[in-house]
Amino acid sequence: MPKAKGHPTMLDVAREAGVALGTVSKVVNRQPVGEDYKRKVEQAILKLGYQYNSSGRVLRTDRTDTVALIIPNTINPYFAKLVHYINIALERRDKKTLLCFTDYDKNRELEFIRMARENQVDGIIALTYNAELVIPEDIAFVTIDRFFSVSVPCIASDNFGGGWLAAHRLYDLGCRRLAFMRIGSSLSNEPSKRKEGFVAACVELDVPFELKILEDNAPFGEFEAFLSSHIQNGRLDFDGLFCGTDMLAWQMIQVLKGKGIRVPEDVQVIGFDGIRMFGTLDYTVSTIIQPVQEIAETAVSTVLSSHLSTVPSLICLPVQYAAGGTTRD
Amino acid sequence: MPKAKGHPTMLDVAREAGVALGTVSKVVNRQPVGEDYKRKVEQAILKLGYQYNSSGRVLRTDRTDTVALIIPNTINPYFAKLVHYINIALERRDKKTLLCFTDYDKNRELEFIRMARENQVDGIIALTYNAELVIPEDIAFVTIDRFFSVSVPCIASDNFGGGWLAAHRLYDLGCRRLAFMRIGSSLSNEPSKRKEGFVAACVELDVPFELKILEDNAPFGEFEAFLSSHIQNGRLDFDGLFCGTDMLAWQMIQVLKGKGIRVPEDVQVIGFDGIRMFGTLDYTVSTIIQPVQEIAETAVSTVLSSHLSTVPSLICLPVQYAAGGTTRD
Repeated sequence: MPKAKGHPTMLDVAREAGVALGTVSKVVNRQPVGEDYKRKVEQAILKLGYQYNSSGRVLRTDRTDTVALIIPNTINPYFAKLVHYINIALERRDKKTLLCFTDYDKNRELEFIRMARENQVDGIIALTYNAELVIPEDIAFVTIDRFFSVSVPCIASDNFGGGWLAAHRLYDLGCRRLAFMRIGSSLSNEPSKRKEGFVAACVELDVPFELKILEDNAPFGEFEAFLSSHIQNGRLDFDGLFCGTDMLAWQMIQVLKGKGIRVPEDVQVIGFDGIRMFGTLDYTVSTIIQPVQEIAETAVSTVLSSHLSTVPSLICLPVQYAAGGTTRD
Repeated sequence: MPKAKGHPTMLDVAREAGVALGTVSKVVNRQPVGEDYKRKVEQAILKLGYQYNSSGRVLRTDRTDTVALIIPNTINPYFAKLVHYINIALERRDKKTLLCFTDYDKNRELEFIRMARENQVDGIIALTYNAELVIPEDIAFVTIDRFFSVSVPCIASDNFGGGWLAAHRLYDLGCRRLAFMRIGSSLSNEPSKRKEGFVAACVELDVPFELKILEDNAPFGEFEAFLSSHIQNGRLDFDGLFCGTDMLAWQMIQVLKGKGIRVPEDVQVIGFDGIRMFGTLDYTVSTIIQPVQEIAETAVSTVLSSHLSTVPSLICLPVQYAAGGTTRD
């Protein structure tokens, strides 16, 4: 029976590409094949409009080869980098990413989780600030930066170690009176440990320190007031400042400059995240770098693990320090 | 017949949430319902593990309600912002995003396009630099920034207008000798028009100008050499510089500062893109802002249009200028 026009077969593709039928089969089934052959087959498939329907596979294996990624946005460069490397890690395993931006909207998060279950995704990776979130038990669920319960694996940077490292580095650079600033959160989340590590190091080094933690919805002006209250006769009474994020560090540096305080001459500043200008150039400030690529890789391998109940409930990955012009190194 | 344990019904969800059955039905079918009711139902669904299988709907309508987005990465903040707003625009229409990062790999692009067709997505939005790309004709395809053919709609900023605006702004700010720098591309793409608009304005204003366009793979040092060759006795012989991107502008400013040239005192610099520090704070340089949100919205409404053959083949959206500290305004 002749094939209807417009419904090319795998053989048509092989003829168009000038390759063997087995080569086409390998390409559509994602088996290894030389790059040149692969390109020829891909081009022929597109040219002829050949349709290899994968839904049969979906029904057979009862998997969709899709992982849902729930994250506030990609405007924030830390989130953007995380989305990038999670997607790359999934692609490497022939999985697709179902991308859900919550914009910090709790109802949208709930709806996304339900939608992901409905679509029978292989798992969910979520970075969320939603305290009310109910984690479904019938789906692989991994969180980033946020503790939910001992049965939900959480992947994070070593935030405690990062805070500890920042205080030590400031001390090694000659600072003898430190301060820590962050925008707080009432949630039990991993980034809170940046403060704990910082305080532990200050106590250990026997260095006096100040803490200024702003509540989520407090006016930003309180940070300015805190800095002003520590300036006497044009001098800041601490010489080392650690901020909870690079963004906050950068904002505080602008405030300090506006008040005639020089960075790094009068005060050395370290942030947290490892954000680079335009994603790839210089660090925006001296910083504790989050190992984003490793966090992504670990989140993906964990969510796809077939033994989710035996994986650690918290995995903290090592951070490192990098100078970015706001310290004297 | 009693329901097996672990397979709750819609009625179980209604009881758990304390709402009417119709309310549950509305939520799972995405019909309007009060936020409070919606949250109660969503929570009950997750708690009970209720499964509303949507695959019936997929088979009925022969649509997957998914659009593939093909883009190099989200490390670059312009791409990151584009991914964000495209995804938001799709979510608003109850569509899912299938995210494909190419990392500029041509074979991966081809594979993604084939995979998207296999998965019967509703359409493809692509930002690609692949000259060899074959666009499948049996699927809605929209490109961003890149011309393929008159039958493939392209959405872009008004790049010509942006180049024109940059030259005019520099002139209005007192510059009387201009230069333009960019990293070139052999492809017929929209951003090339930034130069055309710049040149048109220079001719119109009767202002002398220099052009330095680097090939894709040329060593970056050629830009430095260009700047050095225009410095005589410690003075730069042009006083206004327009760069093809904010990133290039920022890099050139570092080079100029290293050579003792002050920005904006000795030379005023304007970039292109509208990149902000940390995604939301100050502009990194004075800039021509790309209307990313509008580009995203237009790409989405175009790819989902049921009359793709009658939509314009090129839609250019208006840009605007913003001061960012590297000009004297």
